[in-house]
Amino acid sequence: MSVTFAKGFVASGVACGLKASGNKDLALVVNQGPLAAAAAVFTSNRCQANPVIWSKQAISDLQARAIVLNSGGANCYTGSLGFQTTHQTAELVAELLSISAQDVQVCSTGLIGEQLDREKLFAGVRQAYAALDSDGGRSSAEAIMTTDKVPKLAERQSKSGWRVGGMAKGAGMLAPSLATMLVVITTDAAVEGSLLDAALRKATRLSFDRLDSDGATSTNDQVTLMASGASGIVPETEEFQELLTQVCLDLAEQLMNDAEGASHNIYIEVSGAATEEDAVEVGRAVARNNLFKAAVYGNDPNWGRILAAVGTTSAQFDPYDIDVSINGLLVSSKGAPAADRKTVDLTPRKVSIGINLKAGEHAATILTNDLTVAYVQENSAYSS
Amino acid sequence: MSVTFAKGFVASGVACGLKASGNKDLALVVNQGPLAAAAAVFTSNRCQANPVIWSKQAISDLQARAIVLNSGGANCYTGSLGFQTTHQTAELVAELLSISAQDVQVCSTGLIGEQLDREKLFAGVRQAYAALDSDGGRSSAEAIMTTDKVPKLAERQSKSGWRVGGMAKGAGMLAPSLATMLVVITTDAAVEGSLLDAALRKATRLSFDRLDSDGATSTNDQVTLMASGASGIVPETEEFQELLTQVCLDLAEQLMNDAEGASHNIYIEVSGAATEEDAVEVGRAVARNNLFKAAVYGNDPNWGRILAAVGTTSAQFDPYDIDVSINGLLVSSKGAPAADRKTVDLTPRKVSIGINLKAGEHAATILTNDLTVAYVQENSAYSS
Repeated sequence: MSVTFAKGFVASGVACGLKASGNKDLALVVNQGPLAAAAAVFTSNRCQANPVIWSKQAISDLQARAIVLNSGGANCYTGSLGFQTTHQTAELVAELLSISAQDVQVCSTGLIGEQLDREKLFAGVRQAYAALDSDGGRSSAEAIMTTDKVPKLAERQSKSGWRVGGMAKGAGMLAPSLATMLVVITTDAAVEGSLLDAALRKATRLSFDRLDSDGATSTNDQVTLMASGASGIVPETEEFQELLTQVCLDLAEQLMNDAEGASHNIYIEVSGAATEEDAVEVGRAVARNNLFKAAVYGNDPNWGRILAAVGTTSAQFDPYDIDVSINGLLVSSKGAPAADRKTVDLTPRKVSIGINLKAGEHAATILTNDLTVAYVQENSAYSS
Repeated sequence: MSVTFAKGFVASGVACGLKASGNKDLALVVNQGPLAAAAAVFTSNRCQANPVIWSKQAISDLQARAIVLNSGGANCYTGSLGFQTTHQTAELVAELLSISAQDVQVCSTGLIGEQLDREKLFAGVRQAYAALDSDGGRSSAEAIMTTDKVPKLAERQSKSGWRVGGMAKGAGMLAPSLATMLVVITTDAAVEGSLLDAALRKATRLSFDRLDSDGATSTNDQVTLMASGASGIVPETEEFQELLTQVCLDLAEQLMNDAEGASHNIYIEVSGAATEEDAVEVGRAVARNNLFKAAVYGNDPNWGRILAAVGTTSAQFDPYDIDVSINGLLVSSKGAPAADRKTVDLTPRKVSIGINLKAGEHAATILTNDLTVAYVQENSAYSS
């Protein structure tokens, strides 16, 4: 399942002591081929972690045979010592698999500004190599969890038999701009690197890029797609795009569902936009408005806060001709109330906010969460 | 005191029943001249309240003789009925004072999307007119409070004897882009409208525009400056600018100090910036990062979240040559840790974050608050 659902992949997840809890903290995923095609998108944050710096350069040839991921430390802002740790991790994986270090992707997640314990890390890599298994998908997904309560897994199979599977971690700092969190997607379809790259960029634009749990963009985000070609099938481009996007959306919704302290999953559905960019800008502005998010937490249909957020954007609209609905009920229209706010029921976990800008035909849905007491409590004590 | 500290002004604050609590909810400030010069800056939010639409047009001639302010309702997204309420309020004040309605500024604050009760409002205006007093500054400041715990007042006197005084309200939705909250500043210096306007824009740029309590920009913000000339003194331009800016900064700090649920006042001091705009952009990005703000609430010196926020901006810097300090202690330098985070003490209410971008000579300080459990609780139940 997960990354081992597609043929040609083995994976493992082990505990090597990077996490004080003793939980699994190191995952390894290996592509056994015949293809070694790969593509990745990375965080748009300019302050990037050492594994991001390494992986970005290593995948520039659109080839990768293995990806090693650790939780228990972000290896970010750890200086040249931290970069050497990443480099040596890739070298060790390469040595064990008899491949080039350039074909090894490295990801890390956890607290910024602390060195990883190399002894534990390298012992973990050897342990993970020994544990590689064609059924190791779930175990590897467990090993990349930080504040996640559940592992995130997704799978799709095409009619002709090729498969796509993936895993993700992430529960906070979820506001990717180009990529997001740590995600590994595998496929046994026979797809070359440049096509993988294009398909991955399109899929992430429509999925992870529209998830904005808390407005905070990580230093370590990476979404990696690897193709083994083990099915022997060259997929039809449109179907490949469709199933890949479905896996990404599935994982994005699982991330939203497990976001730190959240009590509501909010779908901000912007329609009538002049451009897709306008729809995304408006949705994201609402998703980042703390007052709106706190109101949803309190089951308070305070729709004025939605309009106050829309009004901060540069999207095309007439401020006094916007329709706002909550869970399908029109609450404001033409700059005035349209329904008694007391008739809105916000108690279910799923909330849909409709915003019709009446300026065009484009639409986008942004996924976010409410701002809760538990979110603040959890994030006020992360490093302590 | 407050707006009646400057000669030539009378003011009052009364309770007319707009607030369910029975607290004061209507303020009136009248400039008795001889000058009637005025200037104002307004919210940059494109979804604007009816009083903002009215006041912006009415003050375009840089003249105003009175300003009437109500709490207990924002009169925003209340349609044409709501605009008529604002207009009739100005007409009533004008009639009572025998002036033109065009010389009456109107401000409202409270919940968006609810009509103001005209009967109560107009009775309140008559009551406030009857109560006008040269000692009414504090009372008017009390009448504009919403979730504020204390009224905000400030005063300065020049060596030559002219005065500047002001009042402000605001405890949430504090992230002005051009103006902020409701602020009324008065002076008895003899300053004509265009000079007032220039001085006010400069003062707000350096004060209210650098306050970003919760990233939310209001639909109703207005800062109004009125000059009576009653001192008979034409001030020296530089001294006028200096004292006006001091009053604005004083009020901005009072707003930060009374922000909803806050337990820390955070000064984000960005230096070494290539431009002032870069410094403000970086400071604001940190001020809006929920993870950073929650960490400060928990007294957790999680400085990685500061760099993760800086990295989302387009300011000029080398990501691996930024100095970050907390309360004067250098915690990160050259992309690596510089001190043990455990040595940082975040228990005092005042926190200073130093960010040296090493890219130039410009600097700016952004004022913000932490993200607390009390903030979420207070804002999850505002309209209910």
